[in-house]
Amino acid sequence: MNEAYSPLLQQLIRALKCLPGVGSKSAQRMAFHLLQRDKDGAVSLSEALASAVDLIGNCEQCRMLTEQAVCRFCSSVQRDDSLVCVLESPADLFAIEQSGVFRGRYFVLMGHLSPIDGVGPGELGLDLLERRFAGGGIKEVVLATSVTVEGDATAQLVASMAQKHGIAASRIAYGVPVGGELEFIDGGTLTRAFTGRRAMERSHEEVES
Amino acid sequence: MNEAYSPLLQQLIRALKCLPGVGSKSAQRMAFHLLQRDKDGAVSLSEALASAVDLIGNCEQCRMLTEQAVCRFCSSVQRDDSLVCVLESPADLFAIEQSGVFRGRYFVLMGHLSPIDGVGPGELGLDLLERRFAGGGIKEVVLATSVTVEGDATAQLVASMAQKHGIAASRIAYGVPVGGELEFIDGGTLTRAFTGRRAMERSHEEVES
Repeated sequence: MNEAYSPLLQQLIRALKCLPGVGSKSAQRMAFHLLQRDKDGAVSLSEALASAVDLIGNCEQCRMLTEQAVCRFCSSVQRDDSLVCVLESPADLFAIEQSGVFRGRYFVLMGHLSPIDGVGPGELGLDLLERRFAGGGIKEVVLATSVTVEGDATAQLVASMAQKHGIAASRIAYGVPVGGELEFIDGGTLTRAFTGRRAMERSHEEVES
Repeated sequence: MNEAYSPLLQQLIRALKCLPGVGSKSAQRMAFHLLQRDKDGAVSLSEALASAVDLIGNCEQCRMLTEQAVCRFCSSVQRDDSLVCVLESPADLFAIEQSGVFRGRYFVLMGHLSPIDGVGPGELGLDLLERRFAGGGIKEVVLATSVTVEGDATAQLVASMAQKHGIAASRIAYGVPVGGELEFIDGGTLTRAFTGRRAMERSHEEVES
């Protein structure tokens, strides 16, 4: 850390570097911006951080970040209790909500199995998920973990847990994104797209003729 | 702002967006990172922001950001009082300190003249600088403001102020950076490099012969 700055300024720059994707240069720029041009923003950020750390925890049922005991997805009465989507992060949940495609319940693992980082079933709250499976009423678990070795392993583990309780497990489809041009798609995605191919239904005209 | 998140989480994401260069996606990622993986970091960032906003102000003499009344560059006894470098931001001061090329005093404008944004001589502390010029003991003012229309105008104004007090004014050289390849240098820089060209000294052999 740089001696040209006063101790408090150094401390602020160091603290800003704890943000993901923020290095020394960005942290400096942020510190100067806040101190020179946006002291109100700095105060509200300071307060928002303090109250978020104090009050935001995980939902008792699905582990989503929330300041309530039970989040609004678990407490809503308009959602289908028989479907549970298992995903890795609150941001994934947000993306699925935005699409409007899913109206069941969620379970947020907050990561994926990664023995090397000390993340096992306990860290992902699989005991809590197991109790939800055992509680009954769930017909299908939709696995939306990431398409990585770890994400696939996590999906496998959750699927086998579900199947023990007689619950169907499915994985969302991975393949070429809508509007994606084949020439720019990576090999891994193309492999998924070919191995996951589905029989086409016969077209209406063919059926009629 | 997105309804999938709880109010406190929305508030934190909104507060993070006040950081320069941080949009919705980065703010989300930062919020999740802090809440899931680095609560200690969030607490120290919150505290650093609060104390920085409370305690850091501008140096009475040079306007550098500091929590003392007078910063360490102005209070140091090892610096040359007869030279003053005028620059736009604390980050510029840091870059010059890193190079070790300058051992005089500083004056940080915290911006440049920009009438459209309401930044005039008063906002840049030029009254304070005028008093330093009037105080005597300064022989040369080195202008290191940016090479923009506004930076040049600011340099001109400070230079004319200095000259009124019989103080020499100089501008640091702008041109092709060391190691810069001509083919990749922009036209504006090349123009500066040509208009700012200097006569070469005669080489040793020529002088001897």
